[in-house]
Amino acid sequence: MSLPWKRLIRFEAVDGRILRGEPMLPENKNVDLGFVTEADQLKAKFLVGDDIYDVTGKTQLAAETVLVKNILSPLAQSDVPILRCVGLNYAKHIKEAGRKPPPFPFIFFKPTTTIHDHGKAVVVPKVAQDDQADYEGELCIVIGKDAKDVPIEEALSYVAAYTAGNDVSSRKLQRDPAYAGVVPQWGFSKGFDTFAPLGPVLVAASEIADPSRLKLKTIINGELRQEEGVHDLLFDCKYLISYLSQGTTLQKGSVIMTGTPGGVGAGLSPPQYLVPGTQMDVSISEIGTLRNNVVFA
Amino acid sequence: MSLPWKRLIRFEAVDGRILRGEPMLPENKNVDLGFVTEADQLKAKFLVGDDIYDVTGKTQLAAETVLVKNILSPLAQSDVPILRCVGLNYAKHIKEAGRKPPPFPFIFFKPTTTIHDHGKAVVVPKVAQDDQADYEGELCIVIGKDAKDVPIEEALSYVAAYTAGNDVSSRKLQRDPAYAGVVPQWGFSKGFDTFAPLGPVLVAASEIADPSRLKLKTIINGELRQEEGVHDLLFDCKYLISYLSQGTTLQKGSVIMTGTPGGVGAGLSPPQYLVPGTQMDVSISEIGTLRNNVVFA
Repeated sequence: MSLPWKRLIRFEAVDGRILRGEPMLPENKNVDLGFVTEADQLKAKFLVGDDIYDVTGKTQLAAETVLVKNILSPLAQSDVPILRCVGLNYAKHIKEAGRKPPPFPFIFFKPTTTIHDHGKAVVVPKVAQDDQADYEGELCIVIGKDAKDVPIEEALSYVAAYTAGNDVSSRKLQRDPAYAGVVPQWGFSKGFDTFAPLGPVLVAASEIADPSRLKLKTIINGELRQEEGVHDLLFDCKYLISYLSQGTTLQKGSVIMTGTPGGVGAGLSPPQYLVPGTQMDVSISEIGTLRNNVVFA
Repeated sequence: MSLPWKRLIRFEAVDGRILRGEPMLPENKNVDLGFVTEADQLKAKFLVGDDIYDVTGKTQLAAETVLVKNILSPLAQSDVPILRCVGLNYAKHIKEAGRKPPPFPFIFFKPTTTIHDHGKAVVVPKVAQDDQADYEGELCIVIGKDAKDVPIEEALSYVAAYTAGNDVSSRKLQRDPAYAGVVPQWGFSKGFDTFAPLGPVLVAASEIADPSRLKLKTIINGELRQEEGVHDLLFDCKYLISYLSQGTTLQKGSVIMTGTPGGVGAGLSPPQYLVPGTQMDVSISEIGTLRNNVVFA
């Protein structure tokens, strides 16, 4: 897709407006947008028009620039029809855990009310505060045009961009029989408001020729917890798009969260759950670092 | 909620327009809107304004009437943020099946791309055609204003209306390990386009003082398969709204599908799955009959 931008942020400008735009990065591009603060005086060409996935030329970058105060999620809740998520998708992690790889992707949904800004605290509700809130760093695919019954070999042509995401989860509500019953639950436990931070930036698919070469790290309070190459995905990006589109319209703007590697808090010995003040960094090469803190409601 | 209508249909008018409006029923009201055809010359006062849940008086019924050609789903896909669904929620059905009641509701989601018109055929995609497509008749709650952290005793004040729904499901993709892996899947298997017919009418909450008095029947090719009173819900409407709203914004327009009683095709001996031409009628007292046929893609 030939989009009007290569990197897109949504941000609060110094003048208070909420805008979208292309950040003006130094030539070498070694700037992690997740760590930009007002003091960096980052400039952006703001996007004029309604359709961030426009390929007709109607939506364009402005010639003028504005000063960025702070970066938000690149996608507002109203930009996204739904988040389609994949569980158990990193091969090494499944093997380590002694599990059998699933024959097809394990799919669940997060409602768009979970979408949360980069830089803001995830709010853990009362029902999920008792030693169970957990992080999951994930590569996210953003679909740029409606896709249905797409063959694998065409699948990547439907991708507008990639970003990082954190599939915040509540482990007891997910799989403790006393909370979830006998069948694990992947809906309610992962569906609370603020439980899907996204960002810090959308990187256009044109800039990432092969998503399998990306590398993902999750760093909790400065400690490396998850580190894996996207090449280890059991079902890769193009397969997921094709699989998910069977009999199903993947609407423009939909987000696919591709799954998380080993190293979540529940898997540590002893387990380490989120508490007020935990700093979660999900960092993906070529994309940057999605940073969120934690508060308890 | 004091809405501008008591019963709301979305329909194709004889002049071709797609409108919403209040059907003009005879005094006794014993008309099942699911069986209305063009020959009945049903008239409706059409709704003027953008917000079907408006309580300010801006959206109102027109004085003129139009002739209804055929009734569609009362909610278009774009009217609904998400469908929140409950599994295993009819007490008698759980007991009969020898299962233990879950301690809390079992929650999953259907994307809004599943929403389908009353009267139109459900399209079963190739991936779900091999002896697994199934019906689930359900009472649906429509939320009329944003709800979050709602106490049980206030929960029904957030209900705009009730309607009938059919949670069409693919049993192998849901729970056959060869398709779903070791963990049952409630996402992909129930999420295909057309897999959530709704209708035939929204009945305002003001007209249904106590939803537990409603009775549900599902009739497949003229044969009664499901028949249960809503009073048998393990988690009733007000409990579900309160439970689901914990830490979660139930957005205005959201639909809650409350679960299905015993008698689905997979539970029959031998099982009876949907095939091209199957006629599915989900009938709820005071609401009417949601009728859909089946085709294979």
